[in-house]
Amino acid sequence: MKKTFVNREELEAIAQRYPTPFYLYDEAGIRANARKLRQAFAWNPGFKEYFAVKATPTPQILKILREEGCGVDCSSRTELMMAGRCGFSGSEIMFSSNETPAEEFVLAQELGAVINLDDLTHVDFLRDTLGTVPKTVSCRFNPGGTFTLGESKEGFQVMDNPGQAKYGMTRPQLTQAFRRLKELGAEHFGLHAFLASNTLSNEYYPALARILFQVAAELKEETGCHIAFINLSGGVGIPYRPDQEANDILAIGEGVRKAYEEVLLPAGMGDVAIFTELGRFMLGPYGCLVTRAVHEKHIYKEYIGVDACAANLMRPAMYGAYHHITVMGKEDAPCDHKYDVVGSLCENSDKFAIDRMLPRIDMGDLLVIHDAGAHGFAMGYQYNGKLRSAELLLQEDRQVRLIRRAETPDDYFATLVW
Amino acid sequence: MKKTFVNREELEAIAQRYPTPFYLYDEAGIRANARKLRQAFAWNPGFKEYFAVKATPTPQILKILREEGCGVDCSSRTELMMAGRCGFSGSEIMFSSNETPAEEFVLAQELGAVINLDDLTHVDFLRDTLGTVPKTVSCRFNPGGTFTLGESKEGFQVMDNPGQAKYGMTRPQLTQAFRRLKELGAEHFGLHAFLASNTLSNEYYPALARILFQVAAELKEETGCHIAFINLSGGVGIPYRPDQEANDILAIGEGVRKAYEEVLLPAGMGDVAIFTELGRFMLGPYGCLVTRAVHEKHIYKEYIGVDACAANLMRPAMYGAYHHITVMGKEDAPCDHKYDVVGSLCENSDKFAIDRMLPRIDMGDLLVIHDAGAHGFAMGYQYNGKLRSAELLLQEDRQVRLIRRAETPDDYFATLVW
Repeated sequence: MKKTFVNREELEAIAQRYPTPFYLYDEAGIRANARKLRQAFAWNPGFKEYFAVKATPTPQILKILREEGCGVDCSSRTELMMAGRCGFSGSEIMFSSNETPAEEFVLAQELGAVINLDDLTHVDFLRDTLGTVPKTVSCRFNPGGTFTLGESKEGFQVMDNPGQAKYGMTRPQLTQAFRRLKELGAEHFGLHAFLASNTLSNEYYPALARILFQVAAELKEETGCHIAFINLSGGVGIPYRPDQEANDILAIGEGVRKAYEEVLLPAGMGDVAIFTELGRFMLGPYGCLVTRAVHEKHIYKEYIGVDACAANLMRPAMYGAYHHITVMGKEDAPCDHKYDVVGSLCENSDKFAIDRMLPRIDMGDLLVIHDAGAHGFAMGYQYNGKLRSAELLLQEDRQVRLIRRAETPDDYFATLVW
Repeated sequence: MKKTFVNREELEAIAQRYPTPFYLYDEAGIRANARKLRQAFAWNPGFKEYFAVKATPTPQILKILREEGCGVDCSSRTELMMAGRCGFSGSEIMFSSNETPAEEFVLAQELGAVINLDDLTHVDFLRDTLGTVPKTVSCRFNPGGTFTLGESKEGFQVMDNPGQAKYGMTRPQLTQAFRRLKELGAEHFGLHAFLASNTLSNEYYPALARILFQVAAELKEETGCHIAFINLSGGVGIPYRPDQEANDILAIGEGVRKAYEEVLLPAGMGDVAIFTELGRFMLGPYGCLVTRAVHEKHIYKEYIGVDACAANLMRPAMYGAYHHITVMGKEDAPCDHKYDVVGSLCENSDKFAIDRMLPRIDMGDLLVIHDAGAHGFAMGYQYNGKLRSAELLLQEDRQVRLIRRAETPDDYFATLVW
């Protein structure tokens, strides 16, 4: 059974100060999880998690993660700017982008970020843009073909056919890119690949690591380049459904270690650092969307209308994704009512739950929509003129702090010419 | 073959002043189309189109439509505020919402808007909120069951099973709602239904009209209420693909007239006004997204990277929707290259075209993505920290005017607590 990290009384008190809907993040949970990840990879002295800013682009969250030793993975100019303003610099920043505009490479260079090149053509584009290539640089690998782990997958963008994905370089292109970069002055190399999203398997990272370690050993052999790090990127997921089992990050770390010892050590590459770029795993379970039941409707089905909508959390509408819902104060009540829980968007896909068995919901009840801490607020939009909500942090001392204010109509109108 | 409403020279000149990507709207096209719609329903003296603001929530567009005799259909507080600020008032505004917060009903009332109630429970909610019910009020009908027209449908939210849709009242609830509203003081009634999105059939509106006319006649009989208008809502679509045929709005108007004469006139209801709430039909073809090719990539497929992304136009990523692409200056060149045309989002769904046959694209080429005038900019988001583009109006005199400036990082950071 999924538990909320606040109880009804706490949440009602918060909702008195900050009207629903809002996002609420759990500082203690974020920190404990980040520490467990570090522990899982403590065997690798160079290990660093580069939090995928796109998952939760909120400065106070980034600062907490920085305190826990994380860097950031940025994908755009604004994310780079935010990272810089939050105090990240140099090798604390990874810049993984695609179809990258020249000015973003310039900014990444100014911040001293490690640039992860998506394509072979970007090697010369980078040189032409910067006049040089950085001493340390990374390349993204796309193995093509298919890549499956046999687990069930639901509603997420899973790149089970990397050959159809727009990202990365082919295997021969990696060799070309490394040679060319070396020729242009690069000295330390990284290798990166992202092959699957939200996996629930302790085998994914070790399997991916083994592939990348072998490629890295080959590349070292072929090109003589010094491989400084291997970036396993994202893909370690979270259980959105209550009957799903969570990944065991300690087992995952051990699995990667085994591959490391079997492949990299014999190749004389015991100095390679392991990087990760987790987003969902780092934040997903530690943020929720809090909303209130405002209408009930009885037509061909039973509907509960809430004051949040897909503009606040798009995953159910976009991917048909499941998000667990707790009706606060009714945690132990029988789930004997079947509801569609819907938002007010003029899109019939704006349903947080469809035919969901829940306790009887009364108007005014607070609903917690779980596992919204990553790719939740970040994917919000303003369709139908909807405004995005506030974000709140439940601090370790159980005090609540506003970390992003709710939008106002003036924000919505800011760019208009009347 | 789909034609652009600007040529390459004009567009290059525009792109000199306003960097890509941007939206460009065609004032002449918007006006001509709006006039044709009026002509199609000229037989009905009370006819009014209430433009669905959600499709293109841009004041300068709304003002053009107002000059052409249109009202606005609003779905939220900010849309009501925008309508009021653009000069719409009273019966020029329809307020069609669902799971509506009390304060939005208050604002609608202040503006004198016609309120379209989504649910039976909203009748008393409205009375409790306003202390009264308006003299003129509308109710939304959901017939349940299925509703099909046999046409092919692709990638759009089509409510071919209204029984699964969250909107509207059942047939018995309509009777209850009308009786209750009359009891509370309402004098003039409207009936509304939205059953399908983006139909390409001259039969949809007439078929829907016939259903609503019959229900209206029954309601008048049952309740003695005066039916002042019937709102056919949206659903008349546009051909996104070049091989699709456009709707003939004049034939559609005639079809609705025939149903009117066969059902409403015999029922002594010859004073009923016909309303429409078109969005896509009014704006879709008259706006395009203009972007530039910035990268080319040769891996397992051929990719063209452009400087727009799904943050600017989400329909391909969200619905798999087709948008035609013209490579400017190469309108007559053979389409002998197969490309994926992709944006820079870290989502593999960020593809404006997949396996599309196009002329050879050179870096720097301008690409026009057609039929983006409705539900285009409006559905944009800021995922990956992407900024939304400017909107430009190509005036009737062929001058270009900025009607929404591009977002800056400061806009993106506006609500943050650092």
